[in-house]
Amino acid sequence: MSTYYSAYVNNKPVCLKLETVAQSRLFRIEQMSLRFSNGEQRVFERIRGSGRGGVVIIPLLDAQTVLLTREYAAGIERYEIGFPKGVCESGETPIQAANRELMEEVGYGAKSLENLKTLSILPGYFSAASELILARDLYEKKLPGDEPEEIEVIPWNINQIDQLISHDDFTDARSIAAIYILKNWIDCRLEKGDLD
Amino acid sequence: MSTYYSAYVNNKPVCLKLETVAQSRLFRIEQMSLRFSNGEQRVFERIRGSGRGGVVIIPLLDAQTVLLTREYAAGIERYEIGFPKGVCESGETPIQAANRELMEEVGYGAKSLENLKTLSILPGYFSAASELILARDLYEKKLPGDEPEEIEVIPWNINQIDQLISHDDFTDARSIAAIYILKNWIDCRLEKGDLD
Repeated sequence: MSTYYSAYVNNKPVCLKLETVAQSRLFRIEQMSLRFSNGEQRVFERIRGSGRGGVVIIPLLDAQTVLLTREYAAGIERYEIGFPKGVCESGETPIQAANRELMEEVGYGAKSLENLKTLSILPGYFSAASELILARDLYEKKLPGDEPEEIEVIPWNINQIDQLISHDDFTDARSIAAIYILKNWIDCRLEKGDLD
Repeated sequence: MSTYYSAYVNNKPVCLKLETVAQSRLFRIEQMSLRFSNGEQRVFERIRGSGRGGVVIIPLLDAQTVLLTREYAAGIERYEIGFPKGVCESGETPIQAANRELMEEVGYGAKSLENLKTLSILPGYFSAASELILARDLYEKKLPGDEPEEIEVIPWNINQIDQLISHDDFTDARSIAAIYILKNWIDCRLEKGDLD
């Protein structure tokens, strides 16, 4: 059961028509007519953003501590705690974007950055992906950002995941995925004796 | 470090202006002018959907096995494996919607359903939330759905989370959050002797 083999792997639907039906400064909504391999046709809508990749950064201060941020989220109209995040600027790799956002939002740079996983967000409707970047060997370094107010930085003991998950303002599916993927990454290394 | 106290808790920004700037059949894009408590003003865009809640269902077949689905995702233009999901129909609670979607997509009903967590999705830009519903005591029951093609159901051993996370087509942040929250839920109950 740990692998699966699909009989349908190559049968992607064919796109019969694709058009932009609404557009704003940041987003474009597309309507897509698809014909599935069984002949069924459906019209879907999907949202496209800037097309530049997103990053979610896990700043690991020491083997027990991550740095979370608390920031206003306009979609849900409240402050949310979670991992710092951002969008790649033109020409930036996700690793470079992660280090810049870390300096802007958290006040640290990282000597070691690595990609742990590519996350999708509402993959039925949204084309965007977020690269989950682990940032280690941190050093103090503050870059000015474009945030409207100072971002609060909250150190958190990763052995207290349950308390974090139970918080009503820790809800972003990407942040929840991130803290567990990190915990697993740390446990694997502790088992091998690769981490202090 | 397991709790945090914010000096800024009550200082939510004030909305000066809110208008719809683009609209399609499924989505509405709003532009929001916000004044933060420090006097800074910013214009944000956010996306609103149907306004009805979403559900992500974890069908637990037995203490070791969850049922995943494999479905075409128009946003990322490929098949994705993950937990079954859907949107509440008019008048439905999330629990009712979860049971209906389970019957439509997976071919099972559940005698026991409970809400494990409310997940947000891109909370800076999206108003929608997904209720994460654990479905247990399953029995075979198929309802016709509106899917364009049959949804493949993939049983997965929850002790093989690492293999699942490493799959390139298991990327939805909600599904990753769900499998870890489930694992934690099971481990807690096994510890207490509450689960077979």
